[in-house]
This record gives sequence, structure tokens and C-alpha cells, in this order.
Amino acid sequence: MRPSRAAPRLHKLLVIGVGLIGGSFAAALRAAGCAERIVGIGRARANLDDARRSGLVDATFTLDADWAREARDADLVLLATPVTQYPALLSALAGQLGPRTVVTDAGSTKQDVVAAAAAALGPAVARFVPGHPIAGSERSGAAAADARLFRDREVILTPTSATDPAAQALVTALWQAAGARVTTLSAEAHDRVLATVSHLPHLVAFALMDLIATRADPHAVLAHAGSGLRDVTRIAASSPSMWRDIALANRAALADDLDAYAAGLARMAESLAAGDGAALLATFERAAATRRAWSASTAFPSAASGDDDA
Amino acid sequence: MRPSRAAPRLHKLLVIGVGLIGGSFAAALRAAGCAERIVGIGRARANLDDARRSGLVDATFTLDADWAREARDADLVLLATPVTQYPALLSALAGQLGPRTVVTDAGSTKQDVVAAAAAALGPAVARFVPGHPIAGSERSGAAAADARLFRDREVILTPTSATDPAAQALVTALWQAAGARVTTLSAEAHDRVLATVSHLPHLVAFALMDLIATRADPHAVLAHAGSGLRDVTRIAASSPSMWRDIALANRAALADDLDAYAAGLARMAESLAAGDGAALLATFERAAATRRAWSASTAFPSAASGDDDA
Repeated sequence: MRPSRAAPRLHKLLVIGVGLIGGSFAAALRAAGCAERIVGIGRARANLDDARRSGLVDATFTLDADWAREARDADLVLLATPVTQYPALLSALAGQLGPRTVVTDAGSTKQDVVAAAAAALGPAVARFVPGHPIAGSERSGAAAADARLFRDREVILTPTSATDPAAQALVTALWQAAGARVTTLSAEAHDRVLATVSHLPHLVAFALMDLIATRADPHAVLAHAGSGLRDVTRIAASSPSMWRDIALANRAALADDLDAYAAGLARMAESLAAGDGAALLATFERAAATRRAWSASTAFPSAASGDDDA
Repeated sequence: MRPSRAAPRLHKLLVIGVGLIGGSFAAALRAAGCAERIVGIGRARANLDDARRSGLVDATFTLDADWAREARDADLVLLATPVTQYPALLSALAGQLGPRTVVTDAGSTKQDVVAAAAAALGPAVARFVPGHPIAGSERSGAAAADARLFRDREVILTPTSATDPAAQALVTALWQAAGARVTTLSAEAHDRVLATVSHLPHLVAFALMDLIATRADPHAVLAHAGSGLRDVTRIAASSPSMWRDIALANRAALADDLDAYAAGLARMAESLAAGDGAALLATFERAAATRRAWSASTAFPSAASGDDDA
């Protein structure tokens, strides 16, 4: 991938959390010629060593070292750890950011992130650009990093009225250099729409798999399952602790969607009890028409790259 | 595919409903050298013409013709239409079956089929072998027929105490010649387990897609969706009328599962409202462990052949 005419060039990039997302961001910016020096920061020494050996990053620090001063001369800091770690990380960064350092993140929820940044960063929050790449994979760690992970994927930025337009433009240009399509939403709109298209579907899949997991002999039941159950429950293999954190972080919007979904199931149960085939058919037809139109649209996510989204 | 030593040879096979399942059964038995003459019977002349032109069947009759006497010298009759058509088809067949003619079917529910066969066939019900191949595809019609559709797929037979063991052995050997793995369950056990692994997942997917379909702007919501929602809702594109019929035919078992599923979602909603991360984590971990063990097992349905199951 070559840099587009407008692609910015970072002298120094800090990636905190060199996993699938952080590692792939580093790889994509390196491939696009957008980052001279990349410093990786994380909890696990072995993962950081992997990242350095493969050339993903040039230097590494574990979180128990004095890593935050690396931000002083950094152009960009990406937070790509679980969101629950942000308050501590942002507090550590707060006094260390250079006057031009931009901070962004890749967390799955945005209202809590915006609040954490406002609480920790003081006036420097103007150079914090909240973001969420809608991409992923069932693999994890630096070893799974892929410079093409974000190609043709959406990255949603959720700037506030305090966000510096120049900081937002830098982050936008970098994600575009990584191949992504950048959109903006308010943090609140982001959290509402992600509750519907991602967080609720994960709970739906976990609940369906749990129904079977709590049967007397789950594997005797699963022996008769076909590709339908396989696909409905694929994301039920996702990280339980990550999804606990996302569900709690977005609990208000998620609770609304969970209620609406339960009400829809209750209507189906009533139609079934009443033998009301017309009502069932109307619901199934509306759902099928929307699903088929989505599959046929350009917005439909291809199976080409990453397979999980969080 | 060559016939195994034990593969039977039918002089005449009648396939009623020459769609994906009936057509693929014909193709598989032809490829295995198990059927000399195949007669296709169906509603739509154009589809039957397709089937004859492609060599899938040797002769065809529409349902408004005098088709039932074709059963007199048939070794096997396969019912592969929607189950709602069985009562009329079985009544038409009742007086026309030869003394050795075996009848089987490919319907997704079995208690209603067993009852319909008992009501229509009289003593000939001994030679009715209820069956359900767990295979399919998003394609339909004779043009989608595939001799390999049933390879490594499960076919569940649900014989009753009245079923002639020789008839069951014939149907078993034919499905095995088509590459399938044949198991037996009671009709009641079949309907209970299929409610869990197939019918409930379809309702879960329809309900999730319908939640989005009834939003003010479904496509604005779907523009932010990733591969998670894509896979959870794949089967929401399935045939609405077929799923209405299956849901109503298996309403007792399905209502039980729908209740249990709704109770699981209600527990999640309570945990979310209480901020009880430990309860959410326990559920997600149980589900993820079962899903991962299933993926790693030999029972996991491969993505190789057909993709929908009904």
C-alpha cells in the first residue's frame, strides 16, 4: 500500500495494547509509510517481544515500566487495550503529553471513553479523538496483526464540541491511509447503534448457546445441529470478559434493545400459541426482506477480511 | 461415487417435490448407481422440465395429472414437498401403493408427519419410514440439485413400533449410498432436539432482523454493522412460509424452548440492570466454552457443502 498524496507522516507513534487491533494499526501505518518510529506498550512481555521481533514496533515498554514519558515527543498515541484500563492509562498520560500529541482509541463503547478522557486529560482533551474501528478477527495478540485488517472497514469517530478539528483530521487521514472508511457520529448515537448491530447480537448468541450449555447433555444436542446454529452462535465464542465489559459500559442503550428484542420474541410466542400463521408470516417476511436487501447492498460486510467485530 | 457392496438398487423411484432436497436425492442415487428409473412429480411444469432436461429424472407428472398410479410399481416414494402438502399427497397415494412400495420423506418436523401417515395409509403405514436430512442450501429448485448435498450430513429417521424393519433398512442403505450418516430418534425426541438446534435459532434470527426492520431507517442502522450481525442473521433470509409452517407444526416443543430462551435473556437483563458483571461473565463463559468445544469437535458442521438447514 502506498501513501496517498494527503497521507500524514508520524515521527513517532505510541501504541498502547499491541494486540490484534493495535498491532494491525501499527502494521497498516508502517505499510503505508505513515510512521517512522513505533513504540509498543503493553502488559505481557512475551507479546511485546513478538511484536518487536516481527518488526511491528521498534521499541517496547511494559506497563510497570516508566512508559508514559514516551508520549512527550509522540505525534500520536493509540489506546487499544480493553476500555476498562483507560482511566488508569489516561491518568498516567495526562501530565506527559507533548503540546502537539494527539491521542485516539479503538474502544467498542464511546460515551464512557469520552467521559474518562474528559476526567483525566484536562485541557489536553481537545486533542483526544475517540474512535472505533468496526473490524476484528477471532484471533488475538500481536502475532495476529494484519496490515490489511482495516481495508474497506468502517471506523467511526465520535468527536465532541471540544475536539480540535486538526487532531480529528490527522486521525481521519491515518485511518484512511490504513484503508478504512471514516464516518463520524456523536458518542451517544454510536453507542445506540452499536448496541443494536453488535452488542445485542452478542447477547442473543451467548443466550442461545447458554440454553444448550445448560442442557443435561449439550453435545448430544449439538450432534444434530447444522450450519444454521453454527452461524447464529459463531460470536458466542468471543471473549467473555471483553463482552462483560462492553455490556456494562453500554448498559443503558443495550437494556433498551434487549427489552425491545424480548418484546418481539414474546409477540412470536403469542402468535405461536394462538396458531396465528399470518402474524408469524408477516414478521418473518419483514425480517427476510430486510436481510436480503442488506445482503444485496454495498454496505454488506464482506467475508474477505476479519471476522469478528467488537 | 460408486455403490458400496451393500447399496440397494431401485427399479423405480418416485420423487414428489423435485426441489433442492428431492432433486439432490435423485442425483445422489443416480450417481451411486442405485436407481434405474426416476419419476419426478411436482407442482410447477417448468421446474419438472428443468429436471428432465438435466437428466435428473426420466419422466415427470404435475400434481393435477393422474400421478399416483405411478406408485404401483415403484420401489420407493420420497415425499420432499412442504409438510403441509403431505395429507393430500398421502391420501392420493394410499390406494395406489404396490405391496412392496416403501414411502419415506424429508420433512423438518416428524410427529405431525407420523400422524398424517397413520391417518392416510392404513396398514401400509408399516412401510412408511419418516426421515429428515439435516442439509440444505440457500438455493432452491431442481436446478440447485447436487449429488453431493448429503455427503457427511446427518439423516435422522424416526421409525415407530409399526415400522417394518426391512423398509427402514432400505431407506437407511439408500441415504448411506448418498453419503449421509443415518441416525434414529423417536419422532418426539427429533422434534424436541430440532426445536433447539434449528427452529428456535431461526426465530431468534428473524426476531433480531425484525427489530432492525422496524426501525425508522433500517439501512442507516445496518450501515454500521459488521460480520457478527451478518452471521447471526444469515438464516433470517430463509423462506418465510416454510418457517411459518415448521414453527406451527412444532409449536409445543418450540414454545418450551422460546420460553426458556426468553428466561435466559431476562436473567441477562437483570444482571445488566444490577451491574452484576460476575453473573454476566459466568453466562458468557459457559456459552463460549460450549461453543468452542463444539467447533473443535468432529460433530461441527463443515462449511463445505450446503449452508442452510431446515
